[in-house]
Amino acid sequence: MTAVDELVARALDGDPRAVARLLSLVENGSAELREVAALLTPHAGGAFVVGITGAPGVGKSTTTSALVSAFRARDERVGVLAVDPSSPFTGGALLGDRVRMQEHATDAGVFIRSMATRGHLGGLSWATPQAVRVLDAAGCDIVLVETVGVGQSEVDVAALADTTVVLLAPGLGDGVQAAKAGILEVGDVFVVNKADREGADQVVRDLRATVRMTEHPPGAWRQPILTTVASRGEGLDEVVDAVEKHRSWSADSGEAGRRRVRRARDEIEAIALTGLRRRFAGLHGDARLDELAASVVAGEQDPYTAAEKIVAAMS
Amino acid sequence: MTAVDELVARALDGDPRAVARLLSLVENGSAELREVAALLTPHAGGAFVVGITGAPGVGKSTTTSALVSAFRARDERVGVLAVDPSSPFTGGALLGDRVRMQEHATDAGVFIRSMATRGHLGGLSWATPQAVRVLDAAGCDIVLVETVGVGQSEVDVAALADTTVVLLAPGLGDGVQAAKAGILEVGDVFVVNKADREGADQVVRDLRATVRMTEHPPGAWRQPILTTVASRGEGLDEVVDAVEKHRSWSADSGEAGRRRVRRARDEIEAIALTGLRRRFAGLHGDARLDELAASVVAGEQDPYTAAEKIVAAMS
Repeated sequence: MTAVDELVARALDGDPRAVARLLSLVENGSAELREVAALLTPHAGGAFVVGITGAPGVGKSTTTSALVSAFRARDERVGVLAVDPSSPFTGGALLGDRVRMQEHATDAGVFIRSMATRGHLGGLSWATPQAVRVLDAAGCDIVLVETVGVGQSEVDVAALADTTVVLLAPGLGDGVQAAKAGILEVGDVFVVNKADREGADQVVRDLRATVRMTEHPPGAWRQPILTTVASRGEGLDEVVDAVEKHRSWSADSGEAGRRRVRRARDEIEAIALTGLRRRFAGLHGDARLDELAASVVAGEQDPYTAAEKIVAAMS
Repeated sequence: MTAVDELVARALDGDPRAVARLLSLVENGSAELREVAALLTPHAGGAFVVGITGAPGVGKSTTTSALVSAFRARDERVGVLAVDPSSPFTGGALLGDRVRMQEHATDAGVFIRSMATRGHLGGLSWATPQAVRVLDAAGCDIVLVETVGVGQSEVDVAALADTTVVLLAPGLGDGVQAAKAGILEVGDVFVVNKADREGADQVVRDLRATVRMTEHPPGAWRQPILTTVASRGEGLDEVVDAVEKHRSWSADSGEAGRRRVRRARDEIEAIALTGLRRRFAGLHGDARLDELAASVVAGEQDPYTAAEKIVAAMS
C-alpha cells in the first residue's frame, strides 16, 4: 500500500492520529488530496454537518463545546472543525478560544481541530468540505463547523452545513444589528446567547419581527429563536432539539438532498477553478501577469482586455 | 455617442448622478462594465485609497465619517465606498450605519455609496476595484473603502488599499483578540477607538506587544497605534496624519507602486476567473454540473475527478 492508502485505511478505522494527518494534508493543500478524496468519497455521506456562526464575542466556542456535550450524551461521535478565516497569513489557527474545548480533549468519541484557511479565492469553500469529508469517513455522526466572523465566511459555512445555527448576543453594538440582514438568510436556528444580560429581550424581539417579515411558503421551515446562557449550560438541550427537528424536516422535505448536491457542486467548482488558476500560472508565469498588471496601472489597457489575453491563451 | 460614452464623460466631469449610475452598473455586474473600464482606465490612478476595517461594533462608520471631515478640511475631494459583504443575498446595502454620514450628504466634495457585493467567489475583490476606479476617474483625491467584518473581507480591502486603517475597540469579547492575528498582517495604521472605555489601555498594550514581536527590517514601516473617541471627534487628526505619513513612506519606498500592481493583478485574475466560470456554464449548463455533484454525493466519483471533467472540457 502507498502511504496515503494506509493513512486513509487507518482513518476509516477511526484512528485519531491518521485523521489528524489527513486534516493537515487538507490544510496544507497537499498534492495528495486528490488521492485522499478518491479513497474517502465512497465512505463519506453519513455525517450530519452543523454550522455554527456569529459575530466575534457571541460565545461560539462555549456554545460549540456545550453542543459537543449534548451530542455526546446522545452517544453520537462528534467532530469539531473550528475554522478561522481571519488568519490567512499566519497559517496556524488560534488556540485561545479552544481552551474551552479541553474538557473534550480526552474523550475518544470527540475529534477537535482548529483550521486556518489560507489563500485568497475559495479558502473556506475549498478546504472545509474536504476536512468535513475526512471526519465523516472516519465515523463521526455529527460534524460541528464553527466559523469566526461575519460576512462571507457565514455564507460559506451555511453553504456546506446541513443545519446552520446562528448565534447572536446582546450588547455587541450596532454592528451586530447590521450583520443580521445577512445572518437571517443563512440561519436555520437562531440562538440568542448571554440571555441573562441586558438587551437580550430586545435582540429576541428584533429577530422575531424579522422572521415574521420573511416569506414562508406552506411547508417551509420556520427558524426557531432560542435563548441560552452557554457558559452555564442553560438552554442547550433545546438547541440540540431544534437542530434535530431541522434535520428531520430537511430529510422529509428533500432539502437535505438539495443542500448536499449544492455543497458538492460548490466544491467541484472550487477545485476546477483552482486547477484553472494553476494552469494560468503554469502557462504565463507570474512575471507575465505582473507585466499585464503594470500596464493596467499605467492606464495603457483596461483590466478586461488584460484578463481576456489570459483567458484566450488558455483555450 | 453611445449611452455609456456619455455617462462616462459626465462622470469624468464629476457629475454625481453619472457617478451613481456607473456604480450601479458595477454593483449589478452589468455587461457594459468592460466598456466602462476601458473608458475610465486612462483617467484613473490619481486617487489615494484608504481601507478602513475592523470587527462589528468598533465604530467604523463614525470613524469614516470623521475622516471624511478631516480630509475635507484639507480641501480634498472624498469618495466613500461602504462595502457590506454580509448581505450577499439581500442585495441592498444596509442604511442604518450610514445615517452618521448624513452630515456629508449635502457636501458636493463628498461622494458616498453603500455597496453590497453579491455572489460567491471574488465578490469584494471583483467589484470594489471597479467602484474605486469610477470614483478615482471622477476626480476624488481620496477614496475611503469601509468594510464591515473580520476575516476574508479584511484581507480583500487591504489588498486594494494604498493604506489600511484597522480599528479595534475595548469590550468586544475575546473574539476580537482572536481576530487580531489576521488584523496585524493587514494594518498599516492601528486605531483603538472608544479609548475612553475600560479596557482600552489593555488593547493598546496588546497591540504594542504584538507589533514589537513582528519583524521590521531596516526601512520598514512601523505601524503606529493611535487612540480615538470617534463619537466626540477626538484623536482623528492624528489618524489623518498617520495615514498621510504612511502615504509618503509608501511613495518613497516604492511600496505604493508595488501595491498598485498587485491590486491590478488581483483584479485581472478575478475578471479572468469570472470569464472562465461563465464559459463552464455556457459549455455545460447548470444541469451538467448538478449531475456531477449528485454523483459525488452518491459516492460514485470524487470531486477532483468531477472537476477534471470540467477543466478538460474547456481546453
